[in-house]
Amino acid sequence: MVRKHVVVLGGGTGNFTVLTGLMRHRDNVELSAIVSVADDGGSTGILRDEYGVLPPGDICQCLIAMAECSEELRAVFNYRFTEGSLNGHRFGNLFLTAFQKSMVNPLKAIEAMHAVLAVGGRVIPVSERQARLCAELRNGEVVNGEHSIDILTKNRSPIRRCLFETRIPANPGALEAIQSADMIVLAPGDLYTSLVPVLLVDGIPEALRKTKAEIVQVVNLTCKEGQTDGFGASRFCTEIEIYLNPAKISIALINSAKPSTAITQRYADAGNQITQNDFLTNPPFRVIHADLIADEIAERIPGDKLTRSLLRHDPDKLAHALLNILLN
Amino acid sequence: MVRKHVVVLGGGTGNFTVLTGLMRHRDNVELSAIVSVADDGGSTGILRDEYGVLPPGDICQCLIAMAECSEELRAVFNYRFTEGSLNGHRFGNLFLTAFQKSMVNPLKAIEAMHAVLAVGGRVIPVSERQARLCAELRNGEVVNGEHSIDILTKNRSPIRRCLFETRIPANPGALEAIQSADMIVLAPGDLYTSLVPVLLVDGIPEALRKTKAEIVQVVNLTCKEGQTDGFGASRFCTEIEIYLNPAKISIALINSAKPSTAITQRYADAGNQITQNDFLTNPPFRVIHADLIADEIAERIPGDKLTRSLLRHDPDKLAHALLNILLN
Repeated sequence: MVRKHVVVLGGGTGNFTVLTGLMRHRDNVELSAIVSVADDGGSTGILRDEYGVLPPGDICQCLIAMAECSEELRAVFNYRFTEGSLNGHRFGNLFLTAFQKSMVNPLKAIEAMHAVLAVGGRVIPVSERQARLCAELRNGEVVNGEHSIDILTKNRSPIRRCLFETRIPANPGALEAIQSADMIVLAPGDLYTSLVPVLLVDGIPEALRKTKAEIVQVVNLTCKEGQTDGFGASRFCTEIEIYLNPAKISIALINSAKPSTAITQRYADAGNQITQNDFLTNPPFRVIHADLIADEIAERIPGDKLTRSLLRHDPDKLAHALLNILLN
Repeated sequence: MVRKHVVVLGGGTGNFTVLTGLMRHRDNVELSAIVSVADDGGSTGILRDEYGVLPPGDICQCLIAMAECSEELRAVFNYRFTEGSLNGHRFGNLFLTAFQKSMVNPLKAIEAMHAVLAVGGRVIPVSERQARLCAELRNGEVVNGEHSIDILTKNRSPIRRCLFETRIPANPGALEAIQSADMIVLAPGDLYTSLVPVLLVDGIPEALRKTKAEIVQVVNLTCKEGQTDGFGASRFCTEIEIYLNPAKISIALINSAKPSTAITQRYADAGNQITQNDFLTNPPFRVIHADLIADEIAERIPGDKLTRSLLRHDPDKLAHALLNILLN
């Protein structure tokens, strides 16, 4: 059987979940991940600023998701220092930084990393150049940097739109992957700071319009405070279509299962919201409902300086839903 | 043909040369390197102090010498940061540190590294525990730390003897390697800060006495200012026999070629000395003379914080001389 080519677009965490699930179906699926180059928080932010490299964090997570090397090597790549002068750095980020410095060409360095980790797929930075993400707020203010956008600021005006400080061209490898794809997955994760930075790259929306592949948006499970407050499923989709232009979503994949009381309670306590399924009229794309959520709460990783979502997609459930679309 | 097992003892730079040369004869030779755990200068010193790991520097050099992985991976392992917060760190040192932290057992971590780099031999830390080297000077003063001993201090009293702050037991793997060896090579390099720290480990001298292998000392080409000033070849050997006790040298391998005028001049200008071949009477071991020196001056590596010798053994010439001993 010819394997279908699935191309996943997004940042680190969301891509990680999609890739982890689909990796268990590699008999049917060939995988590529097109990854944001706008990440500038935590360990990654320090390294991109100090060394001028492609931000390693998101790339690192995608490589780990598809690494088929020894468990020891995978673990060290994922290891985060919790003390000393390397405190907060994930080792994989240091490795990607050193590789880029040592090989000079960042794309070749990331390609070389595939062999080291025996990666069962391809991780493709969306551009050869790093980008600085900015958010224009409704009140006209501009917030500079992905991490600054991510930081929760009390009473900050809502985001009107995101853009790059300087436009960057797409990596030709990313365009080719989109061209040859059988399915495009817009991964869940932070809308403005993970997925939008992929769509902002020159050439990506056009490539997405030209490809014959269906474009499946995995709708976020939760709203992000200070960014997507009050977004229902329909708003997540209409918002992304602004950046997809001239491309359009083919399918929205939405969780239909109720999170556990424990999770709902923790969200309510923190004043956070779970995405409501609010499609009242028929949108111009298919809407597919399925149980997609993980039963357990995702816990914090020691040393990680970033705040990440507690409610997550279950890799296996998500993969099954995507395969259902792909193979039927 | 059964391969002979050669076990090389020492620190980083000296071992590197011996291993590099012998790696080209792997049809005939199986290689092990028993490495000092007393290194505490530069990048290594920071990492061992901050993370309590086995000092990675010397281990790193031996792994690189025998790495049969891709040239890209070898290069990144050897890459040294020359800016930013990682300035001065060799990436291999960071890798070994992360691996040890991630796997907890340092010996297992170093073993796992062999697979990553496709190491064509074995690198065996002389002990599972790091050691702090001290030098007792003739005037009774004590200098603490390998790096402090290495720092050139004007008018410092000569070294009477070196010892560890706290005694450490040998790694059983090191004792087994010595036991099964066909030849033991005492590598060139800094006498007190590379080779002696291997011999100071509890159990090593006894293992060297018991082994049936010949013990070949590769006599240093130069004297180290502040440490082995004025040492002739015979003094290098008698000095090492103090630490070898109850073992003894079988063979001293001495360079017989004259260094180029350029090198001799640079040494003379710096007030440094080239080791004189001063065996007047017959010592209680064989003395073998051969042309062993590299024709080119070893240049500084950018970012390296340590001062290293300019005049070096040629890996190929040294390997040929050792094979002549081993196979005849």
